Amino acid sequence: MNSFGKRFIFTTFGESHGKALGCVVDGVPAGLKIDEDFIQSELDRRKPGQNEFATSRKEADTVEILSGVFDGFSTGTPIAMVIFNTNQKSKDYSNIKDIFRPGHADFTYFHKYGIRDYRGGGRSSARETAARVAAGAIAKLMLRELDIKVQSGVLAIDGIWSENIDFEFAKKSEIYSLDIDKENLQKEAILRAKSAHDSVGGVCFVKIKNAPIGLGEPIYYKMDAVLADAMMSINAVKGVEIGDGAKASNLLGSQNNDPIAEKGFSSNHSGGILGGISNADDIDIKVYFKPTPSIFQTQQTIDIHHNEVECTLKGRHDPCVAIRGSIVAEAMAALVTADMLFLNMGKTIKSFKSAYLCKT
Amino acid sequence: MNSFGKRFIFTTFGESHGKALGCVVDGVPAGLKIDEDFIQSELDRRKPGQNEFATSRKEADTVEILSGVFDGFSTGTPIAMVIFNTNQKSKDYSNIKDIFRPGHADFTYFHKYGIRDYRGGGRSSARETAARVAAGAIAKLMLRELDIKVQSGVLAIDGIWSENIDFEFAKKSEIYSLDIDKENLQKEAILRAKSAHDSVGGVCFVKIKNAPIGLGEPIYYKMDAVLADAMMSINAVKGVEIGDGAKASNLLGSQNNDPIAEKGFSSNHSGGILGGISNADDIDIKVYFKPTPSIFQTQQTIDIHHNEVECTLKGRHDPCVAIRGSIVAEAMAALVTADMLFLNMGKTIKSFKSAYLCKT
Amino acid sequence: MNSFGKRFIFTTFGESHGKALGCVVDGVPAGLKIDEDFIQSELDRRKPGQNEFATSRKEADTVEILSGVFDGFSTGTPIAMVIFNTNQKSKDYSNIKDIFRPGHADFTYFHKYGIRDYRGGGRSSARETAARVAAGAIAKLMLRELDIKVQSGVLAIDGIWSENIDFEFAKKSEIYSLDIDKENLQKEAILRAKSAHDSVGGVCFVKIKNAPIGLGEPIYYKMDAVLADAMMSINAVKGVEIGDGAKASNLLGSQNNDPIAEKGFSSNHSGGILGGISNADDIDIKVYFKPTPSIFQTQQTIDIHHNEVECTLKGRHDPCVAIRGSIVAEAMAALVTADMLFLNMGKTIKSFKSAYLCKT
Amino acid sequence: MNSFGKRFIFTTFGESHGKALGCVVDGVPAGLKIDEDFIQSELDRRKPGQNEFATSRKEADTVEILSGVFDGFSTGTPIAMVIFNTNQKSKDYSNIKDIFRPGHADFTYFHKYGIRDYRGGGRSSARETAARVAAGAIAKLMLRELDIKVQSGVLAIDGIWSENIDFEFAKKSEIYSLDIDKENLQKEAILRAKSAHDSVGGVCFVKIKNAPIGLGEPIYYKMDAVLADAMMSINAVKGVEIGDGAKASNLLGSQNNDPIAEKGFSSNHSGGILGGISNADDIDIKVYFKPTPSIFQTQQTIDIHHNEVECTLKGRHDPCVAIRGSIVAEAMAALVTADMLFLNMGKTIKSFKSAYLCKT
Repeated sequence: MNSFGKRFIFTTFGESHGKALGCVVDGVPAGLKIDEDFIQSELDRRKPGQNEFATSRKEADTVEILSGVFDGFSTGTPIAMVIFNTNQKSKDYSNIKDIFRPGHADFTYFHKYGIRDYRGGGRSSARETAARVAAGAIAKLMLRELDIKVQSGVLAIDGIWSENIDFEFAKKSEIYSLDIDKENLQKEAILRAKSAHDSVGGVCFVKIKNAPIGLGEPIYYKMDAVLADAMMSINAVKGVEIGDGAKASNLLGSQNNDPIAEKGFSSNHSGGILGGISNADDIDIKVYFKPTPSIFQTQQTIDIHHNEVECTLKGRHDPCVAIRGSIVAEAMAALVTADMLFLNMGKTIKSFKSAYLCKT
Repeated sequence: MNSFGKRFIFTTFGESHGKALGCVVDGVPAGLKIDEDFIQSELDRRKPGQNEFATSRKEADTVEILSGVFDGFSTGTPIAMVIFNTNQKSKDYSNIKDIFRPGHADFTYFHKYGIRDYRGGGRSSARETAARVAAGAIAKLMLRELDIKVQSGVLAIDGIWSENIDFEFAKKSEIYSLDIDKENLQKEAILRAKSAHDSVGGVCFVKIKNAPIGLGEPIYYKMDAVLADAMMSINAVKGVEIGDGAKASNLLGSQNNDPIAEKGFSSNHSGGILGGISNADDIDIKVYFKPTPSIFQTQQTIDIHHNEVECTLKGRHDPCVAIRGSIVAEAMAALVTADMLFLNMGKTIKSFKSAYLCKT
Repeated sequence: MNSFGKRFIFTTFGESHGKALGCVVDGVPAGLKIDEDFIQSELDRRKPGQNEFATSRKEADTVEILSGVFDGFSTGTPIAMVIFNTNQKSKDYSNIKDIFRPGHADFTYFHKYGIRDYRGGGRSSARETAARVAAGAIAKLMLRELDIKVQSGVLAIDGIWSENIDFEFAKKSEIYSLDIDKENLQKEAILRAKSAHDSVGGVCFVKIKNAPIGLGEPIYYKMDAVLADAMMSINAVKGVEIGDGAKASNLLGSQNNDPIAEKGFSSNHSGGILGGISNADDIDIKVYFKPTPSIFQTQQTIDIHHNEVECTLKGRHDPCVAIRGSIVAEAMAALVTADMLFLNMGKTIKSFKSAYLCKT
Repeated sequence: MNSFGKRFIFTTFGESHGKALGCVVDGVPAGLKIDEDFIQSELDRRKPGQNEFATSRKEADTVEILSGVFDGFSTGTPIAMVIFNTNQKSKDYSNIKDIFRPGHADFTYFHKYGIRDYRGGGRSSARETAARVAAGAIAKLMLRELDIKVQSGVLAIDGIWSENIDFEFAKKSEIYSLDIDKENLQKEAILRAKSAHDSVGGVCFVKIKNAPIGLGEPIYYKMDAVLADAMMSINAVKGVEIGDGAKASNLLGSQNNDPIAEKGFSSNHSGGILGGISNADDIDIKVYFKPTPSIFQTQQTIDIHHNEVECTLKGRHDPCVAIRGSIVAEAMAALVTADMLFLNMGKTIKSFKSAYLCKT
């Protein structure tokens, strides 16, 4: 259960303190130019240790392609990519070897698997998401061919909301803030928590632009449902909304329906999806991250022998997972979109036939 | 793409104004007592036409089992169930035959499939969810064997929130309200919208009690991710939260982490899921429904020939889909839980072996 | 595990002596003309009770479409079809209620599921294959649009091999024999076994004509591998060959390689598949059926209490399952081909793009 | 489509002349001792260049585990394994860069993907099967825990059949021959073909011993059907039989049915599978390999510009793929069995409950 997608499928492997992380991306069309610099640049956006708003763990996160690419182009065979871990400090974890960290997956992994890989969370670490970003970069190269664009940024931190959304600014912001006027307040909130040995939550916004009408498979592989699945699978995510999301539950039908005009929809409360299928408007997704569970205050917990103990973590952690999380959410949105593009092929008998009879 | 689940899989079929709806439930263990009255009673909770808060379309929603049951017990083979439609009034739709209803899937289905099944939404109609409830009833019969309980109710309507949550009251409430003291206000909000030819949104709450530790498959079939997928696949749902959900994004780590004591977790901000895996605490899910798109006010839209037109709907529609939607959300939660129970088997080498070597 | 296919998926349900059999066909493109007479005519080819070479159980096998079709055309939603059983005689089985019939699935179903559905084999009965033929008819309607043709016939019975293969003759033959000159000998073999209260095995030949180059997904969804899976899933099949099959293991490379000329392959030892992918030549499949296990001679067996007993079957059974089996094999080949047509879409970046950018 | 299995799933990647091959094995229970020496020893059985009966390409085929193992035990997370290629000689292929080799996948890959990875077959090369053997070794470690044993050997080469089957001898034989008395004749046949710049076909036999009753999921994931799929997915395989296989089509029911006695089945024509489900007897599979298509005689073919040309291959190739193929077939049988063991869990309500309620 470490794979995602139905036709464009990626599989990830690796633990936070193991030898390497990686992914296998299956279903890439042959003949796609594989821009390795771009893949690396996507990983660089997510990589840790870049500034005071992220963990101080330094990882080059250098990606190496093992298969599926020949002379710079995809061959149609699976693209395997590996990222070797270089800066593990397993001993940071020696003092919590037998202790369940509150808010962490330690507890559930131990009870599910009967084993404790105490080295920094093992598979449950957000470090796994590097592999998603590598896979997502391949998806983006495909989406580019159709001029589909996936963008992301930080919408809110600790309750400070971005208002004038600017995805271009987000790219340059150290915290991927979407609002130049709110960035400083958001940064302050992070540093405030950090200096209190605490952490903060945050909200990300992902927008898919220029997706064609028709993406999403009724009834059980709807575009919005799969996006929700994809986002909720990211570490620390506790809520997902499409379009107006929760706010729509507080509206009347006459307020929430998007009128349709010749040029298209007059508003976009729906977030670009109707009946689980894209309607050609922007697809808008909001992703809610809880605060990083790893905090450096003393907490009440138990150990694996069921004794109550206090725990005080060491180690290096992001004070706000939403920041680097936004890059992961963007990658997941790209991966879902790529999968949907394949699944939507041949939906009418006309397109089914033209896939074989039409010689261009 | 009309199936859901990996090991306990259900497939649904049928349109709102076709001959019949139904489902095939695959993966039911042999020897389960199939209580047909219970299945019917679950359908009765969802069925339309029961009071002024729902559509006036009257459907008996009588379920008929075609296979998979012998002498009252499941045989391990697929259980097919059919519900024949009896009260279709396709002519209600004749005036909107060529018109895209705002907020509806008409537009996207037409562009995806090139066909207009104008009879009441066709497959995109919420009527399809009757089949989910039938399948969910089978899941519940399985969960009962392990004392796992799935409950639901209406948390908010038009911004009026239930506060003293009482699932037993919800069962009796005409609008499945979770709060005896808020029920009337919530009812009034619905009727107010209804008399204004409008509709209202709402929020449902689903709780899974007594799920064992360990449900959920990392990394891409996490319990919370699949629940999000399941909920978002329900008509009109625009947001899903686990535990504290969006609110967690506004908290500090020290506020959001659930301390662990010998007896269990001291709080449940996480909603019973850590790292995508159940932690034995209650699993709490909030589901946000938009207002029913079918309203009886005049709206701006276009027809299939791309002309701008006004449309005024006739037909029979729920003024608030969240009410009957809560029964569907409950069914989906049961279906997800049943699937996860199978997937979790054999996760340790000890349980793998005991499945075959242990003779009880 | 009652579904087959990845993109064009069918699910079957139903038991030999239950209320009904049926299937749900998912993934049919919208706008396909659904010729119900053709579907029924396919079922008629497989239906029992038509002559002395088949079981005397009379079933009309009338198919009823419950969903997915509107005004005679597919809508893109799942097509559910039901066949009600009309001529069950469960009492034929009362004397073997507790006995495992040699060569039958009684034994394994009982031990797997702990339940004995003794009524004529239940789910393991070849009666289930009626649902495959109904689904296969839909697949054939799709294949017709691309001029792909699937044919079948009986190649050998009791060691009497057809030599001058004539699929047109097979259609008219009561035993679907492929050779007008061998039909009588083959018939005699069947009747000889029948009058000895015994049964005979047989071999079927299925040919897919005009499949485009490129069908089959390396490495684990190869065209030949999936055909083998599909054929071996048919009751009583014990061997499958592609092209020269087993004979190829007895050849030199210089004898077995098919030379390639401008016009195409000069021979077809490969059976139209190279590296798991169709090469545009005829796809040739041989399917080996064991003799019907239901014979009316006394046999040694045990009962469910583990006592050794003799059993003498009653009931109505085909003396040679290969005959009607050839229709099922043909249906399965059509179903596999349809699935592969979808999976092959978008395999090059050019076709990926043209699926969205090309407006025809 | 580079993954196999439903619950115990492996994914392979890599090309014959790329950087590396590998696999990701997903679903391994936690706590399994991972014996790396054993995994390497399995790869050593398949590796090329060991004697005159195989290709002279020398590859160490050293496997490196990247994830999923901690302190020598599986953690329940995906086990990624990599084998770096060390002895590629791409220039061997420079003279056939634009030519389709008869009997090869060159032709179909080129037409499917529009790309020519001429370096030794790329993904279609049998070199990919090294990754299967690595995955199969993990499966075998799991099967050992239940005393299930998978064995293989060469049954026939160029029509010379092993008669006195001895799996222990096969392990020591340079050509994995199953019959000490036929080994020399079989060897001679290989060398005769080799010296004639030709190749020979062969037949392998795989036996699964001690599989429990109940493996195999009706109707579309039957044990025999999935084994057929698995075997046919191996390069050069053209036929698969279970038990008596094709021979059964030439028998009467009274000859083919296996009588059942208190101690078990009195014969095993069925090959250990009834109704697609294992019956606790030996599971017997015969796998037919065509002769290696790469021969060093001049052959007629065309190039990618559609010109007729003669081709004469260089390079290093096995004169008989069945030999090393038997190791691959054995691995695939182990992988299928492991998957089926998981899928069979919880098939009765009793075992479903005991998976959760039974505390051992």
